Amino acid sequence: MAKAMVKTRGAKGAKRQMPAPKKAAPKRKYVYFFGMGKADGKGDMKDLLGGKGAGLAEMSRLGMPVPAGFTITTEACNEYFENGRKYPQGMWDQVIENLKKVERAMGMKFGDPANPLLVSVRSGAKFSMPGMMDTVLNLGLNRQTLQGLIKKTNNERFAYDAYRRFITMFGSIVMDVDRRKFENVLDEVKKEKGCKEDTDLTADDLKALVDTYKGIYRKETGQDFPEEPMQQLQMAINAVFGSWFGDRAVKYRKIHEISDKLGTACNVQTMVFGNMGDSSGTGVGFTRDPSTGDRHFFAECLINAQGEDVVAGIRTPLHIDELKRRLPRAYKELDTIYKKLEKHYRDMLDIEFTVQEGNLYMLQTRVGKRTAKAALRIALDMVKEKMIDENTALLRIDPAQLDQLLHPMIDPKIDPKTLVMIVQKGLPASPGAAVGKVVFTADEAEEWAGRGEKVILVRPETSPEDIGGMHAAQGILTARGGMTSHAAVVARGMGKCCVAGAGSISIDEEKKVFTIEVKVYDKEKEDFTVKDAIVREGDFITLNGTTGEVILGQAPLIMPELTRDFAIVMKMADKVKKLGVWANADTPKDAATAMKFGAGGIGLCRTEHMFFEPDRIKAVREMILSDDVEGRKSALAKILPMQRGDFLAIFKEMKGLPVTVRLLDPPLHEFLPHTDEELRDLSSSMGVPFDKLKARNKVLHEFNPMLGHRGCRLGITYPEIYEMQVRAIMEAACELKKQKIKVMPEIMVPLVAHVNELARMRKMTIEVARQVQKECKIKVDYHVGTMIEVARAAITADQIATEADFFSFGTNDLTQTTYGLSRDDAGRFLPFYVENGILEEDPFITIDQEGVGQLMKIAVEKGRNAKPGLKIGICGEHGGEPKSVEFCHRIGLNYVSCSPYRIPVAKLAAAQAAIKEKKKGKDLSRATV
Amino acid sequence: MAKAMVKTRGAKGAKRQMPAPKKAAPKRKYVYFFGMGKADGKGDMKDLLGGKGAGLAEMSRLGMPVPAGFTITTEACNEYFENGRKYPQGMWDQVIENLKKVERAMGMKFGDPANPLLVSVRSGAKFSMPGMMDTVLNLGLNRQTLQGLIKKTNNERFAYDAYRRFITMFGSIVMDVDRRKFENVLDEVKKEKGCKEDTDLTADDLKALVDTYKGIYRKETGQDFPEEPMQQLQMAINAVFGSWFGDRAVKYRKIHEISDKLGTACNVQTMVFGNMGDSSGTGVGFTRDPSTGDRHFFAECLINAQGEDVVAGIRTPLHIDELKRRLPRAYKELDTIYKKLEKHYRDMLDIEFTVQEGNLYMLQTRVGKRTAKAALRIALDMVKEKMIDENTALLRIDPAQLDQLLHPMIDPKIDPKTLVMIVQKGLPASPGAAVGKVVFTADEAEEWAGRGEKVILVRPETSPEDIGGMHAAQGILTARGGMTSHAAVVARGMGKCCVAGAGSISIDEEKKVFTIEVKVYDKEKEDFTVKDAIVREGDFITLNGTTGEVILGQAPLIMPELTRDFAIVMKMADKVKKLGVWANADTPKDAATAMKFGAGGIGLCRTEHMFFEPDRIKAVREMILSDDVEGRKSALAKILPMQRGDFLAIFKEMKGLPVTVRLLDPPLHEFLPHTDEELRDLSSSMGVPFDKLKARNKVLHEFNPMLGHRGCRLGITYPEIYEMQVRAIMEAACELKKQKIKVMPEIMVPLVAHVNELARMRKMTIEVARQVQKECKIKVDYHVGTMIEVARAAITADQIATEADFFSFGTNDLTQTTYGLSRDDAGRFLPFYVENGILEEDPFITIDQEGVGQLMKIAVEKGRNAKPGLKIGICGEHGGEPKSVEFCHRIGLNYVSCSPYRIPVAKLAAAQAAIKEKKKGKDLSRATV
Repeated sequence: MAKAMVKTRGAKGAKRQMPAPKKAAPKRKYVYFFGMGKADGKGDMKDLLGGKGAGLAEMSRLGMPVPAGFTITTEACNEYFENGRKYPQGMWDQVIENLKKVERAMGMKFGDPANPLLVSVRSGAKFSMPGMMDTVLNLGLNRQTLQGLIKKTNNERFAYDAYRRFITMFGSIVMDVDRRKFENVLDEVKKEKGCKEDTDLTADDLKALVDTYKGIYRKETGQDFPEEPMQQLQMAINAVFGSWFGDRAVKYRKIHEISDKLGTACNVQTMVFGNMGDSSGTGVGFTRDPSTGDRHFFAECLINAQGEDVVAGIRTPLHIDELKRRLPRAYKELDTIYKKLEKHYRDMLDIEFTVQEGNLYMLQTRVGKRTAKAALRIALDMVKEKMIDENTALLRIDPAQLDQLLHPMIDPKIDPKTLVMIVQKGLPASPGAAVGKVVFTADEAEEWAGRGEKVILVRPETSPEDIGGMHAAQGILTARGGMTSHAAVVARGMGKCCVAGAGSISIDEEKKVFTIEVKVYDKEKEDFTVKDAIVREGDFITLNGTTGEVILGQAPLIMPELTRDFAIVMKMADKVKKLGVWANADTPKDAATAMKFGAGGIGLCRTEHMFFEPDRIKAVREMILSDDVEGRKSALAKILPMQRGDFLAIFKEMKGLPVTVRLLDPPLHEFLPHTDEELRDLSSSMGVPFDKLKARNKVLHEFNPMLGHRGCRLGITYPEIYEMQVRAIMEAACELKKQKIKVMPEIMVPLVAHVNELARMRKMTIEVARQVQKECKIKVDYHVGTMIEVARAAITADQIATEADFFSFGTNDLTQTTYGLSRDDAGRFLPFYVENGILEEDPFITIDQEGVGQLMKIAVEKGRNAKPGLKIGICGEHGGEPKSVEFCHRIGLNYVSCSPYRIPVAKLAAAQAAIKEKKKGKDLSRATV
Repeated sequence: MAKAMVKTRGAKGAKRQMPAPKKAAPKRKYVYFFGMGKADGKGDMKDLLGGKGAGLAEMSRLGMPVPAGFTITTEACNEYFENGRKYPQGMWDQVIENLKKVERAMGMKFGDPANPLLVSVRSGAKFSMPGMMDTVLNLGLNRQTLQGLIKKTNNERFAYDAYRRFITMFGSIVMDVDRRKFENVLDEVKKEKGCKEDTDLTADDLKALVDTYKGIYRKETGQDFPEEPMQQLQMAINAVFGSWFGDRAVKYRKIHEISDKLGTACNVQTMVFGNMGDSSGTGVGFTRDPSTGDRHFFAECLINAQGEDVVAGIRTPLHIDELKRRLPRAYKELDTIYKKLEKHYRDMLDIEFTVQEGNLYMLQTRVGKRTAKAALRIALDMVKEKMIDENTALLRIDPAQLDQLLHPMIDPKIDPKTLVMIVQKGLPASPGAAVGKVVFTADEAEEWAGRGEKVILVRPETSPEDIGGMHAAQGILTARGGMTSHAAVVARGMGKCCVAGAGSISIDEEKKVFTIEVKVYDKEKEDFTVKDAIVREGDFITLNGTTGEVILGQAPLIMPELTRDFAIVMKMADKVKKLGVWANADTPKDAATAMKFGAGGIGLCRTEHMFFEPDRIKAVREMILSDDVEGRKSALAKILPMQRGDFLAIFKEMKGLPVTVRLLDPPLHEFLPHTDEELRDLSSSMGVPFDKLKARNKVLHEFNPMLGHRGCRLGITYPEIYEMQVRAIMEAACELKKQKIKVMPEIMVPLVAHVNELARMRKMTIEVARQVQKECKIKVDYHVGTMIEVARAAITADQIATEADFFSFGTNDLTQTTYGLSRDDAGRFLPFYVENGILEEDPFITIDQEGVGQLMKIAVEKGRNAKPGLKIGICGEHGGEPKSVEFCHRIGLNYVSCSPYRIPVAKLAAAQAAIKEKKKGKDLSRATV
């Protein structure tokens, strides 16, 4: 009750904007006791007690055997920093008070030479975090208490072992002494004595070691090892707090978007010993199988050992059945406890325990990490077991994790220290992973693949001539070109892994090598170092198209597997999601994949992809290089039947679902011939002098192609191009309709900045569509809409809506133009920005809600104000990213569109967004009661 | 009263959203009578009666001798088109009614064989507009009325001459018969008869000609020449209305942003004849000198002639004194009238008159066009004469016109048909005009200029090595590069005319020629035709840096002249304007010019310009190509003293006014060496292998440099660059302050998209500034602010404001990124957009208020919400464009900054904005009374 009072007063004071005088402030509770059936805290107090502290409190409340201890709150940590690294007033008194409580509970005394209480000190933030302070065990030992421990345990060796472990941990973790200084001495002693294992050392060996260790400590820190247990405790608490702002922790939080303001709690807990002989032991486990999700206890143990022995890999853990066999009473208790815990938490848990002389003690519990496959299985099983409802099951699955089930991926269990990775990543142009031997030409790719080799095609950049080789390869790596380069677009279309624009690789095509800087883990320095590497034809490399990483050699891959569980979860998601989930699909094959994953339509069908096909590129080039309308028209006449064929096949595949076809978007110069040879070929087929063609080719060069003559600007200045495309779409639609096959074409005009652009293109479209329908003597429904992909379109969406049947956010370009930042060129600063927290996240991966997202919101509001019920979607790559999908749900979009393989991710994210909203609604309604 | 009733009812009806039933609608007045002392209309009814009709009505009201007539309203014209080219109900009846009134007033009858009334029919829109229907004179003539005219005038020759003129005009203007068909016959007859002038032809000659003309009319139109005067009148009215949607008029309106909805009026007026002998005559004039503004009647006349003879240039007009001498009574009346008119209109007027047999008739009056010089003089004189107040005087001067007084310009009186102009314009990179002989290298430019030649330097693009030649040249023309290219930036800094990126010129440096497509007026075709042209070294060309035009040969230039009037007007403007007017100035010379024009500070001092100086570029290149911090630092150490020197000189010049220094902005690769030779030179001086340098040079290439590694992205990734710049600024400031010279540095961070970027740069700036002040032992005030030049900055201005002392809109880049459009690449579509009305105006010339302007408004609101009183300016090129200046005033900016030579324009525009706002305020307060 007192606590509640405090809170209420604080809140009221804040409202009145009157800071309460410091002295008069009621005493704040900084320390929470737990253990042996009681606890001040609870399991839902992770914010205040950290994950570990909350788990210990909850287990105590459940009456489980938790060694007594206390948790110093995250608030105390925050105030510690606010006060310039001083404890908040009253905290230390509460520590002492609670320490007494622990002494009473455990029947021992801290620092008592006769019956010493030893404790462990651990950090415990809300989220577990690398770089945070590790465990310090056996704290409270000194020359005197050591004697007490020896007497109490009647085991000198054990006591000295505990002492030397304590000095090592305290020295390295609290005082930052290089741990190897201690280990080297240990190794020497073992060598000298001819011992193999630590356990072979005698009490005397260890006794000597303790003295040496104290010397090392003195030499490295300039002070004596602290004898006073209270001083030890204070120093350890300071180290826990201090580690919150350690470099690694700060960096980790920035990367993972964890606020600096959370703070860490500090757990001080009575030591229990798993290494007090054969009736003792230690173990860790999961309440279900974390890799398959199967419902069985998945745990390991060690007899006569401490937890750190497992972590250090000094001994190999045994199957949990060993515990059952050797310590059946403890095992039975554990069995009851883990089941009770799982039922209580209604989730799969990760637990730690120790058995001291036959008595079981629980040391930790938390929600267990799991593979995607396990996540599905566990969620579904728990629904069946009526532990959770379907919505909870859906929320339990991490959408991003689903990728594991959809693409080959590099085994996440692999230790990055074992990989040789290039320093400067390329662009994650097409997701998945691939391993293969390096080849440098498309022909070789086909040839090698023909004889059964797996190859990675490495090119400065690709062109339509390389399509065959790209097909044959496992993956594609290019040195130049961005997310919309030929390689990227084609690879995504093929569903093939691609890393593009890896600008730091330097290719020598003649010598068939490329050179590159790589980072290699140097065990000596305990850090990565940079080296130059040469990769030759035939060498293995591994691409990670999801991250843009390139690894030399063969990294282990995990292959995708679509289970029945997956299908069930998708069905559950479909039931609750509000957003439509459509696919970006440029080919009939893409469309088929999209249908397989249950797409609601095609949100983006890029027509330029079709232009890249090798049999078409020549006609396209003829068109571009013609300097009059007639020349363009005659070239376009050759392309028309091909485009019509494309649309026919895609429409057919989609069975009447909407297919959003984007008219030609990229700058014409992307299609230009690269070599004089190609130009000469065109020159003869077009009957235009080579010099003239070459000059025109040069004129078409653009300074900033992203901001150049592209999108509807092409359609407006060369209307014959879009006319041909609209004709192809409508002819295909009419033909299918005649065959009684349903079609729903949605014609999308790209890069509109001003309503007049769209008005003009809409008029043209309607006119051509009218003509085609008249010629075909059949009526076909269709819509005309636009991309919203520049700020001006967003800000004038009310005007644009008057000419649009639908909007589709092109968030890739919208992000680029809103930031004034080209993704292709951002490699030299964007990674730095993200690493240094200048941008919290890469805005090309997840929508920048504050900037780009605000423009989207404005566009939605203005667009729907002008035209209520306007259909609005998104077709940028964000359409398949969970956080962005949630944002799209919140701002009221009708659908997201993403690459076919992202559909499951998007569906799950959409379902979660709907569930969260519903929950929020409930919370709100409760709040207003 | 009835009219007022109609209006009131209409308005109320509209408010109630209930369309009044058509039948019950009160009769609308479509036709307004004027003449001989009375008029239905007034001078302020230009919207309804057009400029000409309003002028005729006003003169009638003033009791001046205006031949009676009537004006058919613009509303009638609009309804005519709404009704599918049918007259609105009742209009024709009103025409007939008013024609009767005219007959009564003039004592003649339309179509009466004995006493025929003849009329002129003219279009008359609110704004005079090329492409609108010209005058048809003598309408009402036919076989019968001709005889009446002969009898009445007793002059057969005059009557037949009038008839053949009528047929020519009616045929060509109303029926679109090629005028030359008539003229050719006339020429043949004259040749046949051995006559030189039309006046030499006899009555019989003309009689025969009339028959031939009627034959031509029949042949060309397929119908007989209309005999019925009422039919003639109807056809002429139709032609006037029809010309409103003629191609030329539509295009003109689009270009000049005149709404299609204005419509044209049609004026039908009694003919008076200046060609009835020596007591008759005609003339045009201005009430003051339109080119100097001097206060004297500036008019010309012809005796025994019709107005069209003056227009056709058949006879040379005489000084108005000739009228005084020969027709003193008419002259005296004219003298009284023009003075009365000017007093009435309180402006300089343009008038037209005719004297028929000694009687003066006024045919037109309107506000007269004038040169900038005259505009100033007239406005100031009228203030002195107490005709107008100072505010009105300021509103009378067109700010855009002031440019005439500030730069050399191509004489606007030149007929474009006489010029040979290149077809595809370049970019208007630096304003003004220049004439000179073509040279192709900087060395030659210096050499030729050294011997007194005026030269234009023509280069593919310029580089720092060309500075000397650029100085020596009159102007610079480049084939590549945009508005921010080296040539453009340097030329603007030098105040030198430059046309950049004229991509259609093809330079052969070896042969010293360039080839280009030009347009030449073809008199035969009466249109421009395109030809290829070759320009050799030594050929004259003329550049128009204000428009981007290039003209072969020497076009006549007008030189600038700064008068006392100019200074007085500037003082008047300073008194009323609210906006500060600052200058963009990169050099001490710019700063001096800015001070001369009364700049309030420097709003943009670009530091990259300083980097381009030839003695520095090498150090800059060393810096860029260093691949480590140390290399960069050592190169920067060389640049530091130079930059400090720059700032010292500029600060000194500005005498304590704020100097806004923008830290380095452009992509580093703009500074890169272009040739292997330059690279080799650097290689040896840097001691870095050539290959390595070359590779690094290649890596620095960007796909979209505009969106690349530039602005604060450089400052963040290579902090040593900005640190050096801040140090240079602060060291200069401290040194001057020690000398008791006032300084006010404002440090501006470019291309901020996220508040974190600015926060980081601000922190760095404050730290360096602190160090420098400590070293110098002196305190200097300074501010740190940011450009707002990408949409994200505008939309998150509330966040950014927390880290900024000021904002400055970079509307060039803001426009580019908001549209997603690079100015350098827009040449292939932006002109088309503007010509075809897709964009009403080029958004790089005047701010796009709907799009870019909305973002600016959002930024101002959010910025000042977060930080009330935040100083906000603009430093894009729009800062000197009158409409944009007005917009900046309206949205509450503190200042505009423009190139020094634009300051007067900006000041005047700012003053006008303030006056207009005040007026509006008055109007509003009146409205609320």
